[in-house]
Amino acid sequence: MTDRLERQIGFIIELDKLKNILRKTRVLGTDRYENDAEHTWHLALMAIVLAEHADARGLDLGRVLKMLLVHDVVEIDAGDTFAYDEKGHEDKEEREQKAANRLFGLLPGDQRDELMALWHEFEAHETAEAKFALALDRLHPMLLNFHNKGQSWRENGITSERVLARNRVIEDGSQALWDYAQRMVREAVERGYLTK
Amino acid sequence: MTDRLERQIGFIIELDKLKNILRKTRVLGTDRYENDAEHTWHLALMAIVLAEHADARGLDLGRVLKMLLVHDVVEIDAGDTFAYDEKGHEDKEEREQKAANRLFGLLPGDQRDELMALWHEFEAHETAEAKFALALDRLHPMLLNFHNKGQSWRENGITSERVLARNRVIEDGSQALWDYAQRMVREAVERGYLTK
Repeated sequence: MTDRLERQIGFIIELDKLKNILRKTRVLGTDRYENDAEHTWHLALMAIVLAEHADARGLDLGRVLKMLLVHDVVEIDAGDTFAYDEKGHEDKEEREQKAANRLFGLLPGDQRDELMALWHEFEAHETAEAKFALALDRLHPMLLNFHNKGQSWRENGITSERVLARNRVIEDGSQALWDYAQRMVREAVERGYLTK
Repeated sequence: MTDRLERQIGFIIELDKLKNILRKTRVLGTDRYENDAEHTWHLALMAIVLAEHADARGLDLGRVLKMLLVHDVVEIDAGDTFAYDEKGHEDKEEREQKAANRLFGLLPGDQRDELMALWHEFEAHETAEAKFALALDRLHPMLLNFHNKGQSWRENGITSERVLARNRVIEDGSQALWDYAQRMVREAVERGYLTK
């Protein structure tokens, strides 16, 4: 029992490192890049507030929350791959699987298997819960960008066409959120936050 | 419908501010103080991994997660009150209720009521879910301190006696975690991270 608890605590301590993995979006009203731990909290909060907009009936919100809470931990070893970095995506899967093996491998076997399965479920985006979780993960930086005058879009020369192409998967989880996202992109172009 | 979604998004954007509320513990291996959003993610992760150590049978983990994910949002207006700041605790309740009214009040009425109730449930620590959530909230800074050579204990002159008195409530949620916490405090004293 004590050894089991020691392994669990070891995993929790190792995962503190997620607080050091920086994304490309900045925290609103600051110059500081958001890190993966903050991003993950924000996504989980979004899941609670926006669950009713999932297209699937009878969504298991607890499962969505668990999936979101671990979806980015592989970035501790593999780093954050910017959404629009095509080169970075070539070997992303391999780097991330290796990271998952090491990190989830810190846990007792049954929990390693459970969290690994949740992470694979998220990555595959086939279940209703994974589709909704992915929709939130894509919507989140769009929201921050919109409310930060297009900050990471402008810093990285991203066009509205690429934003729409990249984030179209939101539609697989929620038509209402995809409609909202498209309106936001149109508005961002009008305001000059995003080039056409 | 659109107005409802606008209110929900407005709440999500306002809550970005939780990323700017600093605690007294530092992110491991850095000089940077941890913020409430990161802390909350870490707590929710702990809940997933440590749920089996809750004393209550049939714990509703989804409810624990929801409670944790909103438990600190009032600090956006009320600020973080350091665990050992007795003066700060005098008017904490009033400051936080005012903050809850404003922040949860950004949501549609039904969601305002749901999240307000979850926050009150956490604060009252009477239900099994709230007792376990509180146990994690108290254990978390102890873990970070122990793995950071007693950083916030040393910076604030906190003794082992105060740590044990303050965090005894862990026992109400989990005997196993309280046993672990007590062993950690003894070890911290032996290593000189904490004065007796």
